[in-house]
This record gives sequence, structure tokens and C-alpha cells, in this order.
Amino acid sequence: MNDLLIKALNRQAVPRTPVWIMRQAGRYLPEYRAVREKASFLEMVYTPELAAEVTVQPVDIIGVDAAIIFSDILVIPHAMGLEMDVFEGQGPVFEKPLRSVEAVEKLPIPQDSKLLQATCDAIRLTRTTLDNRVPVIGFAGAPWTLAAYMLEGRGSKTFQYAKSFLFNEPRAMHQLLDKLTRAVTSFLLQQIEAGASAVQIFDSWGGFLTEEQFRAFSLPYLTKIVDNLKDSGIPLILFARGANHSLQELAATGAHALGIDWQTSLAAVREKLGNQVALQGNLDPAALYAGPEILEVEVQKVINAYGNGHAHVFNLGHGITPQTPVENVKLLVETVRNYSPRFHAADEAILLQNGTPA
Amino acid sequence: MNDLLIKALNRQAVPRTPVWIMRQAGRYLPEYRAVREKASFLEMVYTPELAAEVTVQPVDIIGVDAAIIFSDILVIPHAMGLEMDVFEGQGPVFEKPLRSVEAVEKLPIPQDSKLLQATCDAIRLTRTTLDNRVPVIGFAGAPWTLAAYMLEGRGSKTFQYAKSFLFNEPRAMHQLLDKLTRAVTSFLLQQIEAGASAVQIFDSWGGFLTEEQFRAFSLPYLTKIVDNLKDSGIPLILFARGANHSLQELAATGAHALGIDWQTSLAAVREKLGNQVALQGNLDPAALYAGPEILEVEVQKVINAYGNGHAHVFNLGHGITPQTPVENVKLLVETVRNYSPRFHAADEAILLQNGTPA
Repeated sequence: MNDLLIKALNRQAVPRTPVWIMRQAGRYLPEYRAVREKASFLEMVYTPELAAEVTVQPVDIIGVDAAIIFSDILVIPHAMGLEMDVFEGQGPVFEKPLRSVEAVEKLPIPQDSKLLQATCDAIRLTRTTLDNRVPVIGFAGAPWTLAAYMLEGRGSKTFQYAKSFLFNEPRAMHQLLDKLTRAVTSFLLQQIEAGASAVQIFDSWGGFLTEEQFRAFSLPYLTKIVDNLKDSGIPLILFARGANHSLQELAATGAHALGIDWQTSLAAVREKLGNQVALQGNLDPAALYAGPEILEVEVQKVINAYGNGHAHVFNLGHGITPQTPVENVKLLVETVRNYSPRFHAADEAILLQNGTPA
Repeated sequence: MNDLLIKALNRQAVPRTPVWIMRQAGRYLPEYRAVREKASFLEMVYTPELAAEVTVQPVDIIGVDAAIIFSDILVIPHAMGLEMDVFEGQGPVFEKPLRSVEAVEKLPIPQDSKLLQATCDAIRLTRTTLDNRVPVIGFAGAPWTLAAYMLEGRGSKTFQYAKSFLFNEPRAMHQLLDKLTRAVTSFLLQQIEAGASAVQIFDSWGGFLTEEQFRAFSLPYLTKIVDNLKDSGIPLILFARGANHSLQELAATGAHALGIDWQTSLAAVREKLGNQVALQGNLDPAALYAGPEILEVEVQKVINAYGNGHAHVFNLGHGITPQTPVENVKLLVETVRNYSPRFHAADEAILLQNGTPA
């Protein structure tokens, strides 16, 4: 198997930087759109054959070093009984958002949920199809991000309801976050059981908390999940978008890797964190709209910014957009393959083993 | 005149922390909505009597320490010939966005524009109505933010067109930013001439640039504007949302104050910057949805986070939302008035004069 990703996440020596792309199974691919024409988004998520089909597409077409299972962070709230609709261009909407302390108290933790099972079955199918070509990444939303969505009912510029609840009902908020922590843990362990070789937690709305709120309402639950998964031996990537005020605290959770958003300089992050965690990221997704010469330079800049060493996983700093030209995505992967080996000289491995910043 | 704001911006001793609120002349006020029912948003912006009326409202109703002129950052592009429409709930839209190098080359720098004159006339009227009760703040959008809007044509989650232009046509991008820098400078000087006692530059989309892009495409132009306004003797506030990677560089521009967004800890920012600039902010606007006891504590936390010293202007870390209850805004102002004097002990003034962090 191509084990570049797993080795890099474990900070072991690799001959080049591995690369995958957030939302790589997505609308920018004509092959994805062809599947999507025949099925709704949720049908794709909940039909293991379809989910597995689009999961494998970017491995075949783009040549990425990992497949991330096609699913959605909101399958957990859905499995907890929140009815969900997906409207084109608007994203998922919960018809009846969680809006009371009583609703939080009554909320069940999903057990043997068929909805969650579908993602695990999709992982099994994907592994069979991939036949060990590349590892499969499982994922879940972070408790705060899921709670924000469940309280708000939809994506939002302000998360008015979620933030009001946090301010006015902190005890119930913690109860909700605790239930979600248990649900996320159990779902990730099921995905690992089904064959995920790495997992990522998306705290997509981490940036909707102040530094103080993040440390009270998100970080402790991320820490618990990392602890709960430690025994699995499976590397875990934490991606808390917009929470750059807490990178040191996120590294201290014991996660194997941190996802870094594109606004942040990877050089500055590495200077701050050294080699204590692997770093994943962080090309500006808009660079994929640039001409090929410019794109190549932008990809090289990210690799330069990380510098020498093995604990870098190349990715975007946010999900790929539907408008991205496929040929640019191929060029990105090719550039990482060709340009990164010079940063993986043999002696770097020794430096890294000794824990010295390379 | 209540000169708390001007003194705090100039880092002079004040008996308490001054307070104003971004978008304080806005939809959360029934009195604003009453004016808005009779006129469109653009009619309000371009009718000095109406603009002055809503500008004064929060001084009378909420008791803030400054009036910020009711206008819009997009009056400059509008005055440069981009036709603008405002749709309810969507914000302004340019019918024909700037999409070519030729369009940038042809773009005129506004001279004697009636559109810009309206804001200056509104400042004159506001000063007359206020009769020196509180100072009037003028403002403009930052060159990058205006350019992003002009290229994109509307608000965006990705600023695809603006970012593509930045990558593919960097020379034309710099030409556009240079033109906007000249337009912003001239507009701010006109506002000062009309009676603005302080000015703020909003780089609202600063967070849509990477650290490297911000330093190449925004910071140099902010620096030029600060330089251009130095001789006016009028204090200038820079608010670059989401550009916390560059706070030290923003302070080094020579701006009198930096606006700080609500995600960031004011304590951490002050620790980093000391007393070299005044700091403005940074309550989470969502705290205004909280109950009164909780809101009071949240306001106090921001004042505590700044700590002892005179160079703090209390504000939100983002604009106030239309859903905010008016009584909470009054409570916010009252809390700043009552709680902040303890951080303004006489000896702090001496410390500050000597340049020692208080």
C-alpha cells in the first residue's frame, strides 16, 4: 500500500510529501456530477455503493495519496433524530433545530444507527475497491460544530441561536457537547473498525467562537475524543478552522496532526510548534483558479514554507470549490510529487527521530 | 465636547473607557427602521439630512461617545462609475463588476463627486445637530476590500474572481489598489475637512487574503493612506478583520489605533503590542443576545482583558446585528461607563506618558 500519508502523520521518514484534497470527491469532477445527477446528495451519502464510487474517483483521476470517505459531518445529528433536508446551493437544513434545554436532555446517543452504518459500509466497499492502493480516511464533525448546526438549523453568518444558547444555557450546552463527544467517538471507532486508516475531525465553525469560548466549549471535547481514540493506534488529524489562537493547545491534545487553514503561514505555524505534530495544509483554494505557472509556484511556496522534514501532508487550507478546473488539480498533485522529494533528504529522518526540529 | 474617544485614540489620560459600536446607526433601532421605511438604503446614504438623522440617533438613544457617519464603504466604487444596486438581505451588488485589465486602466479617480460630497455634507449637518456633544467619525473601505468587491461584484464566500485576478493579473491588481488608495485618501481628507474628528479604515475582507497576500496587496496601501493622513493630525483607526497574523505590521504603519475582531483575545493582543497603538474592540456581538447579567460579565471581561491604561476604545469586534435588543445595547454602554473608571487610575497616565506598558 501507498503508506505515505500514514507515515507522515506518524512523523516517520517518507521519500516525498503525501497529498490529498479536502472535498476531493466533489462537484469539480465531471465523474462526480454524473453520479450526482442520478441521486440526491443524501442518497449518495446513505448508499454505500454510490458513496464508495465517488470516494475512489479522485484516486483514479487525480492520483491523490488517500481516499477520504464520501459522507457529511451532519450524519451524526441526523442519526440523533434531527430531520435533515439538503437544498441546492444552501447546504443541509434541519427542519426542527434544537432550541431548548429539554430537547438537549431528551436527545439520544445513536446506537446501531443504520445511517451511520451506511458510512461504515461505504468504507468497507471502498477498501475492497481500492485493493490497498491508498489508505481510507474516516471523519466526523467536532462536537462544537455539530452543536452549532443543530441549534441554528442551518449554516449562518452569525450563529445567533447557537451563540445565544452558549451564553444563556452553558450547562445544557456542555450536556449537548458531551453527548456529541460520545457519539463522535463511537462513530469514529466504527469507521476504524470498518477499515479507516486515519481519521479527521472537522471543527469547521471553530472560528465562530472567541479564544475563551473555544477553550471552554470546543477544546476540552476535542481532547476527550483524541484520548478516546488513542488506543486504536490510528492517526488523528484535528482541523479547527479559524482557531489559530489555540494551535499550541490543539497540538497538546495529542492529536497526530493539525490541519492548518490557508490564511495562516505554514512557516509561522511550524516555527511555533516545531515537530511535535504533523501539519496538514494549506494552499489557498483560490490558487487553483490561477494559470498553471502561477499555480505551480504557489504549490512550491507551501512546500517551501513547511521546509525540510517528513511530517507534512499537502492539502488545501479549505475545501476545493466546484469551479476548480480538473487539470489544475492534477497539476497540483504532480507538482507535490516532483517538487517535494528535495525536502525529504535521508538525514532529515535521523533529525526527526531525535526530536530535533529539522 | 466629550473628547474621550479622541484622547483615548491619542493615548492620553481619560477618566473612563470611551465606547461606540460598529453599525450603531442600524436596523436594531426602531427609530432607524422608521427612516428606512421612507427611503431606500442608497437614498439614505446620499441624502445628507437622512444620513445625519440616523447618525445622531445612537448618540441620543444609546449614549455612545462618538457618532460614526452613516454611509457605506462602496460609495467610492460607486463614485468611480460602478453602478450599484442594494437588495434586501443580500447587500450591495455591482451590475457590471470590473473584470479586465482594460477596465482597471480606464477606471477614473473620482474628483468633485456628488456622491462623495453627500457624505461630507452629512458630516457637516451632523456636526451642527450634535453641537459638539460627541465627535464624528468618518470612514472608508480599505483598497483591498474595495477592489475585492469591485472585481467580484458582490459579497462572496470565496471571492473567486477577485482572487483569480490577484493571481493572474498582479500588475493590474496593484494598479487598481493604487487608484483606490488615492481615492480613499482624498475622500478621507474631504471628510476631515467637513468635520470628522477621527477616521476608520475598514479592511472587512482582509481575512480573504493569506498572510503573504495581505502583506503584498493590502498592508502597503494601508500604510500609504496612514502616511497621507499624518499631517491632518486626525487620529486614524485601522480595522483589518481576520488579519491577526499581521497585527505588529499594522501597528507599525503609524495608525493611532487598531480595531480588533472578536475572535481574538484583547489581552493577548495587548501583550504583543504593548502601548504602541490604542486598541479598539472587541466584544463578541453575540453577547448582546445574552441575558443582562451575562452580558454585563462579558462586557467586564473585555475591559479586564485590556487591563489598566487609557488607550482602549470599547466596541464590538464586528458590526451589531439587526436582531440585537436595544435595551442590551444601553446596558452595554452603561456597564462600560460604570465599570471602566477603575482601570484609569491617575498614575496609569504617568506610566503611559513614559511609554511603559501599564
